[in-house]
Amino acid sequence: MAVQIKHKIWLEQDNAMLMGKGHVLLLKAIQKMGSLSGAAKEVGISYRKAWKLIDHLNSTAPSAVVELTTGGSGGGGTTVTGYGNELIGFFEEAEKESRLVLEKQLSKNETLWK
Amino acid sequence: MAVQIKHKIWLEQDNAMLMGKGHVLLLKAIQKMGSLSGAAKEVGISYRKAWKLIDHLNSTAPSAVVELTTGGSGGGGTTVTGYGNELIGFFEEAEKESRLVLEKQLSKNETLWK
Repeated sequence: MAVQIKHKIWLEQDNAMLMGKGHVLLLKAIQKMGSLSGAAKEVGISYRKAWKLIDHLNSTAPSAVVELTTGGSGGGGTTVTGYGNELIGFFEEAEKESRLVLEKQLSKNETLWK
Repeated sequence: MAVQIKHKIWLEQDNAMLMGKGHVLLLKAIQKMGSLSGAAKEVGISYRKAWKLIDHLNSTAPSAVVELTTGGSGGGGTTVTGYGNELIGFFEEAEKESRLVLEKQLSKNETLWK
């Protein structure tokens, strides 16, 4: 029997969602696409939903995670700040560390599934 | 800013849920109450829902996790097998190890939230 161990992590502040995997995927899509509308399309959610996710995080976290770039040849867009990049790094590191420890527990107890 | 890191773990087999926190809480309620109907009430779900959760796990796992006890002064009931107890232990240990590693990541990066 092939059993997988799955996990999901997220950050809360005052018992309310602050940042989850959805935020991370959206921030990474902003990095790639250079705009919130492009990022929303990339991850397959509405612009309104993307805006709400980012706006809440941006206004709640101690520093801004994205900033608007105005003008330029592309007519402006959205970029992830250095702080936003640090949050992405933190989230992915925590996710990885948790995954490693869970995989270890699973292989340590593999006789349970035989 | 007080940020908490949250997590959820579960086991899958062939991309289908095998066992999650709900199963563990229900198994522990069976230990306590001695019957599936008592356990369902204890955790606040319907008997039908409790039956489906346990039946799927019981028929999918390599060994039975619960067994019916017939007769006796109480008129029979449901008990958790030794194997079921091992699964509970495994799940809680994995959950704890993951929580510890996540808390460590959070305190290592506490400057992110200041």
